[in-house]
Amino acid sequence: MKHIPFKGVIAYPITPFDKDGKVDLPLFRRLVERLVNSGSHGIAPLGSTGVLPYLSDPEKEAVTEATIQQVAGRVPTLVGVSNLTTDKTIYHARFAEKAGATAVMIIPMSYWKLTDQEIIEHYDAVASKISIPIMAYNNPATGGVDMSPALLKRLLEIPNVTMIKESTGDVQRMHYLRKELGEEVAFYNGSNPLALAAFAAGATGWCTAAPNLIPGLNMGLYNAILNNDLASARKVFYEQVDLLKFIVTKGLPRAIKAGLQLLGEDGGHLRGPLKPLNNDEILELEQILSTIKELDYQFS
Amino acid sequence: MKHIPFKGVIAYPITPFDKDGKVDLPLFRRLVERLVNSGSHGIAPLGSTGVLPYLSDPEKEAVTEATIQQVAGRVPTLVGVSNLTTDKTIYHARFAEKAGATAVMIIPMSYWKLTDQEIIEHYDAVASKISIPIMAYNNPATGGVDMSPALLKRLLEIPNVTMIKESTGDVQRMHYLRKELGEEVAFYNGSNPLALAAFAAGATGWCTAAPNLIPGLNMGLYNAILNNDLASARKVFYEQVDLLKFIVTKGLPRAIKAGLQLLGEDGGHLRGPLKPLNNDEILELEQILSTIKELDYQFS
Amino acid sequence: MKHIPFKGVIAYPITPFDKDGKVDLPLFRRLVERLVNSGSHGIAPLGSTGVLPYLSDPEKEAVTEATIQQVAGRVPTLVGVSNLTTDKTIYHARFAEKAGATAVMIIPMSYWKLTDQEIIEHYDAVASKISIPIMAYNNPATGGVDMSPALLKRLLEIPNVTMIKESTGDVQRMHYLRKELGEEVAFYNGSNPLALAAFAAGATGWCTAAPNLIPGLNMGLYNAILNNDLASARKVFYEQVDLLKFIVTKGLPRAIKAGLQLLGEDGGHLRGPLKPLNNDEILELEQILSTIKELDYQFS
Amino acid sequence: MKHIPFKGVIAYPITPFDKDGKVDLPLFRRLVERLVNSGSHGIAPLGSTGVLPYLSDPEKEAVTEATIQQVAGRVPTLVGVSNLTTDKTIYHARFAEKAGATAVMIIPMSYWKLTDQEIIEHYDAVASKISIPIMAYNNPATGGVDMSPALLKRLLEIPNVTMIKESTGDVQRMHYLRKELGEEVAFYNGSNPLALAAFAAGATGWCTAAPNLIPGLNMGLYNAILNNDLASARKVFYEQVDLLKFIVTKGLPRAIKAGLQLLGEDGGHLRGPLKPLNNDEILELEQILSTIKELDYQFS
Repeated sequence: MKHIPFKGVIAYPITPFDKDGKVDLPLFRRLVERLVNSGSHGIAPLGSTGVLPYLSDPEKEAVTEATIQQVAGRVPTLVGVSNLTTDKTIYHARFAEKAGATAVMIIPMSYWKLTDQEIIEHYDAVASKISIPIMAYNNPATGGVDMSPALLKRLLEIPNVTMIKESTGDVQRMHYLRKELGEEVAFYNGSNPLALAAFAAGATGWCTAAPNLIPGLNMGLYNAILNNDLASARKVFYEQVDLLKFIVTKGLPRAIKAGLQLLGEDGGHLRGPLKPLNNDEILELEQILSTIKELDYQFS
Repeated sequence: MKHIPFKGVIAYPITPFDKDGKVDLPLFRRLVERLVNSGSHGIAPLGSTGVLPYLSDPEKEAVTEATIQQVAGRVPTLVGVSNLTTDKTIYHARFAEKAGATAVMIIPMSYWKLTDQEIIEHYDAVASKISIPIMAYNNPATGGVDMSPALLKRLLEIPNVTMIKESTGDVQRMHYLRKELGEEVAFYNGSNPLALAAFAAGATGWCTAAPNLIPGLNMGLYNAILNNDLASARKVFYEQVDLLKFIVTKGLPRAIKAGLQLLGEDGGHLRGPLKPLNNDEILELEQILSTIKELDYQFS
Repeated sequence: MKHIPFKGVIAYPITPFDKDGKVDLPLFRRLVERLVNSGSHGIAPLGSTGVLPYLSDPEKEAVTEATIQQVAGRVPTLVGVSNLTTDKTIYHARFAEKAGATAVMIIPMSYWKLTDQEIIEHYDAVASKISIPIMAYNNPATGGVDMSPALLKRLLEIPNVTMIKESTGDVQRMHYLRKELGEEVAFYNGSNPLALAAFAAGATGWCTAAPNLIPGLNMGLYNAILNNDLASARKVFYEQVDLLKFIVTKGLPRAIKAGLQLLGEDGGHLRGPLKPLNNDEILELEQILSTIKELDYQFS
Repeated sequence: MKHIPFKGVIAYPITPFDKDGKVDLPLFRRLVERLVNSGSHGIAPLGSTGVLPYLSDPEKEAVTEATIQQVAGRVPTLVGVSNLTTDKTIYHARFAEKAGATAVMIIPMSYWKLTDQEIIEHYDAVASKISIPIMAYNNPATGGVDMSPALLKRLLEIPNVTMIKESTGDVQRMHYLRKELGEEVAFYNGSNPLALAAFAAGATGWCTAAPNLIPGLNMGLYNAILNNDLASARKVFYEQVDLLKFIVTKGLPRAIKAGLQLLGEDGGHLRGPLKPLNNDEILELEQILSTIKELDYQFS
């Protein structure tokens, strides 16, 4: 039986920097603590939200260790270990396992478009070097390669590749995965505006940075789905869809940082070339947040 | 208050031809009768399924009249009257109204890409000449123009444009329509593989040729939604999704004709350049149908 | 040996309407006369520029006859006879042949996406009914179907399909045609902004509505190519590229009509839903024309 | 006056690895020497061909120094210094300048899509820290961000951003650059199959890995252009277009390595996840090379 340690809402923290451009680990731990306290069902550091590709190796290691120490087993952890080269991916996957991660997430980052065979061998090579489960992640918009449903199916034949995260924004990909792989396959939605459609299609979980800002509405959607209450799920989805679209459109690290500050939290600094939202964008976010903040507290 | 005469499953008959290439009106009426008897909530002749653009004016008129006589008021009728020129669209819309159609469906067919202003004036001109409601239809894949959500919103300001049919296959368009226009707006899904996602998003109805082949499963999906039973809706959707994808991929007129013949019904002939499915395609359809036929009867 | 009656600049007249919405045949003949007098190497009525799909059968026939009478054999004529159904395409192709057209142009217009086999049988059926050459025309943006280079190669096996017009705007399609089909194949460029790149790639001709406005620059480009003078070709191309882009972006019938009026010619009326350019667009066109009008006269 | 040190054919060496996965510097120097001897007008290490993003910082530095030592001023050098973060890009640009590079090439690599403002500030920050010229490079297929012509124009306002390399494969981008920026602007083509169209459009140079395999044909094309001899340019282009398409389709590092081996040269090893071409691909390349090898020697 496949080992599938995640379901529900898997929350992605940002990686904040201090004013000198260094990772601000104390702030990072506070942000992780907020996510655990908000009821998130899993914590996923070093994702796109966590600007994984912009970090040095020692920074990635420090963030991994800080997450595991802070979460302290209260919920499972999913550590991003993707890298352009196979050797480096193995290196970080082994580090995450040794540090106590529940599972690792791997997107086949590409500069040169990879062939299917190159992708399979990449996952095979990493999987053979660790014992914890792997979530294979498809996101052509950031990773640069689009894995076909057939390729994702092939990856699931690797014993510890047990989960698929789909972020293409095409719900028909999820239909295919479910039809081809049966009800036991665990697929996760990584496209925030598809949260309702993906749960309707049978997604096991939702990988999202939104709980940094509106955890009550996020958990509320999942709970309505668990209760088989579509009318309520639709209602709570439409209450949050504007925020979900905003954070995706503006880029998750920039939008979450700005949202945290609007909520009175410290969001830290960004690492260049990423810049803060401009004033118009912040005003737009403020307006969206103000209309849903109270709704969020009702759910949390 | 807007006049919205449709909800649920709106069924699209094909337009069958005889061996001499003429519209086979007696067969057409039998096919319409099947759709009414199957429990469809509306009948929509002269859609894409009905190969509207391949018909002469007298053929369109005969099909319109045959539909209205055969349905005889048992369910509402939605007659396709789209045409490249504004004058011809007005001509057919007036004919449909006089013949007794409940409403007309209009897609802004384009050879030359139309500007938003040209589209608005096109709908305005037609709407001012008839009293029955208009369903505005967006389907860039067949019509050649993609109406933005903002343009669709603008069209709804025309008094008798009361319904929107969205066939882009992008569920986020439906989110936008619902958010921008409020819960009262009636939007219909015209993308078969999105049937579950669209109903989850709050679609009022589903415009589909599938009831020609599997009406029980189609109505079963709608009934599960009415019962707020997402688990059942998901189950019955996955039972039909392979057929829904097949008929869309192969072209509705060709696929429905072949499916009717596999079910022991007469599907008539196609008008060139359209050709029947080849043998491999028919075998694939036979296999899909054989696995879901029994399921379909349970629902019907 | 293949019969290839066209080379150089093949000019497309608009189809003007009078204020009552009827085709203005006297004006049409004057516009054709202008094109012949300007030095165009061929005249192609009933193209996209001539709003073929917006015309009734009698209108198409009147335009065909008017063209052939007016041109009176001074240059070859290429009559558009495309239609959604195969039977109607045959009808108009036979009419054109009987009326004295040099060749016909056929784009596989589609509402339902056609399979390659359907397209081949469509051309086969028409070709077997006429004796004059056929130019197969690929333009997914208006026709709705994109014929692959391999399919175009297959169409050239039909004896009287002797010419290919490519309007995808991708110069690599032309490289493929030239490499696959050898130097004898006649391919024509239908994408105005690619005029220089297509001639550089070896195109036999350029199908364009631009000679309605700037014939001197158009012929100047072709003459520079004939003289193997790339530096001059580049110079004269950059002098006209802004106009070429403008007329494509705004739609050829609308832009040519406006340009004729700016040049002091009568452009007639458009048929709805097409509307005239707005004032800003007319001003932009005026500015472009004013900077190149003199250049044009130097060449003509 | 802008400092523009490159014209003609700028050759991109691969970065070869030894069997233990380390950069094979002696082999790299031999490959650079081949390119200089073949008549290339510039040498560009650490491009996409040189798998820049797969290298560690010390490896990049070693490749930079090896290039400059080997070239020894015989032709100008263009060193790739792109990096996801601004700080690292500055670091490598300064290293290249100090090592003696003639210019640096920078593509705004993105994981998170960058805003125009973020891209401008990124280039500004780097440009202010070095004195040598910068070639701004647009290649959405590998870099993940598509810089609009308007943005490229804005970047050219930065004093030492003096050159643009365009690799979108759309020749109309080049028309725009030439029209907007005047004849003085130096734009370079990075899309191999567009080599003829780009030179016809006025490109100053061609950035290409092809001289690793067919330098004679590459220089032959440029020389025909210099001689204003379009007919010859077309002829020599069609002789090499199949190879140009092959190396782009298969990925430059993989295809060049295989081609070197077919020519009897050592191509070294690839770094995972990149894998060698499979046997069918190698046979296809062998066939292409065998038909053009002799032609190449005629030109060289």
